[in-house]
This record gives sequence, C-alpha cells and structure tokens, in this order.
Amino acid sequence: MAGAGPRRVCFLLKVRADRLAEYRERHAAVWPDMLAALSAAGWRNYSLFLRDDGLLVGYLETPDFAAAQAAMAASDVNARWQAEMAPFFEALDGAAPDAALRPLTEVFHLD
Amino acid sequence: MAGAGPRRVCFLLKVRADRLAEYRERHAAVWPDMLAALSAAGWRNYSLFLRDDGLLVGYLETPDFAAAQAAMAASDVNARWQAEMAPFFEALDGAAPDAALRPLTEVFHLD
Repeated sequence: MAGAGPRRVCFLLKVRADRLAEYRERHAAVWPDMLAALSAAGWRNYSLFLRDDGLLVGYLETPDFAAAQAAMAASDVNARWQAEMAPFFEALDGAAPDAALRPLTEVFHLD
Repeated sequence: MAGAGPRRVCFLLKVRADRLAEYRERHAAVWPDMLAALSAAGWRNYSLFLRDDGLLVGYLETPDFAAAQAAMAASDVNARWQAEMAPFFEALDGAAPDAALRPLTEVFHLD
C-alpha cells in the first residue's frame, strides 16, 4: 500500500559474524565524500540496522530508486566504498553489495 | 549513529509461509480505528515490508518508542488487532506480535 511522496525502499544483506564489530566501526565513520555522493544521488533518510547475528536491514526514501541506484553505480567513490565493504558480507556471489540489493515489498504504510 | 530528531525503530517478525497472501490482504485494509490508535500513540512513517519467505521488516519513527509501545499496549483496538494477527506469525512463544518486537541496532544514518 504505497502512499504519496517518495518511494520507501527496504533491503536485507548479511554481514559475516566475524566482521560485525569492524562493520559497525566503519559505518560510524563513513567517508564524507561517500555521504555526499549518496545525498547527490537522492538517497534520503537512509538508515542501516544490524541484528546481533549479522542480518542487516537497509531503509531509505528516494523519488526514484532506479535513478538513485544508477547514480551511485556511476560514482567513483561508491565503487571504492563497495569494494572495501564486499568482504564484510556473506553470499554476494561476486556482486558488489549495492548490486546485490533486493528490495522487499511494502505491504503497509501509515504516514 | 543516531542523528537528531525522532528515534528510528526497525524490527523483524516472521509470517507463516502458508498465511502470506492473507497477511497482505489484511494489511491492505487495516481497521481505521487501528490506524487512528497508532497515530495517536506517536507511530509515524510506519511501514511493513515482506520478503517472499515471510520475513517481515517493520520501520517507524517516533519521539519515544517506549511511550509509543505503552500507548498501544493500553489500547483496546490494538488488543483486538494483535489477537487476530498472532496466528499469522511464527515463533512468538505465546506473546502478542507487538510484545515480541526486538528493535535492531541502528549502525548508520544519513538524513
């Protein structure tokens, strides 16, 4: 049930159990040019949540998710960031983390 | 890394694989008095996302999550709604779905 306004996107990834502490540290200090690239690409109200077993939930809002993904895919800083992040994740089958995102279906929304 | 503003809350539940279609239907038509109760209790920008295997992600924003939960726990309509929803979920160990919520840790946020 989609309301008006930006699209809300939710995705899941799995962080390796032996890399959780380092994953948290890296995300407490994301490169400023990576943050700027996300903002310029239309990623808004973007959060990552981590369960103790490594299940990672991403949530963001954007006017057009395909455009937001394409803008990041064309960004040099994103290529460097994703290359550094890839070893933290399970089961990417060789893909970069941002290329492995599978948005879930929104089944309810209340503004 | 929490920014300023309302707290962002993310939680996970598991919908039974054989009840997914009905779960979706029920959430496309949540009772108006349940929606009103959530709003009155401070649940804002609240979405539910469903993966094909039944993994359910909840995301909401609220000034005070403990207060928002307590307000719903005191609500008659919520008691009726949660009683109807409980059979849709796995592994609640007898708890109502809203009592089984375990918020994940936010590890990143970009406004």
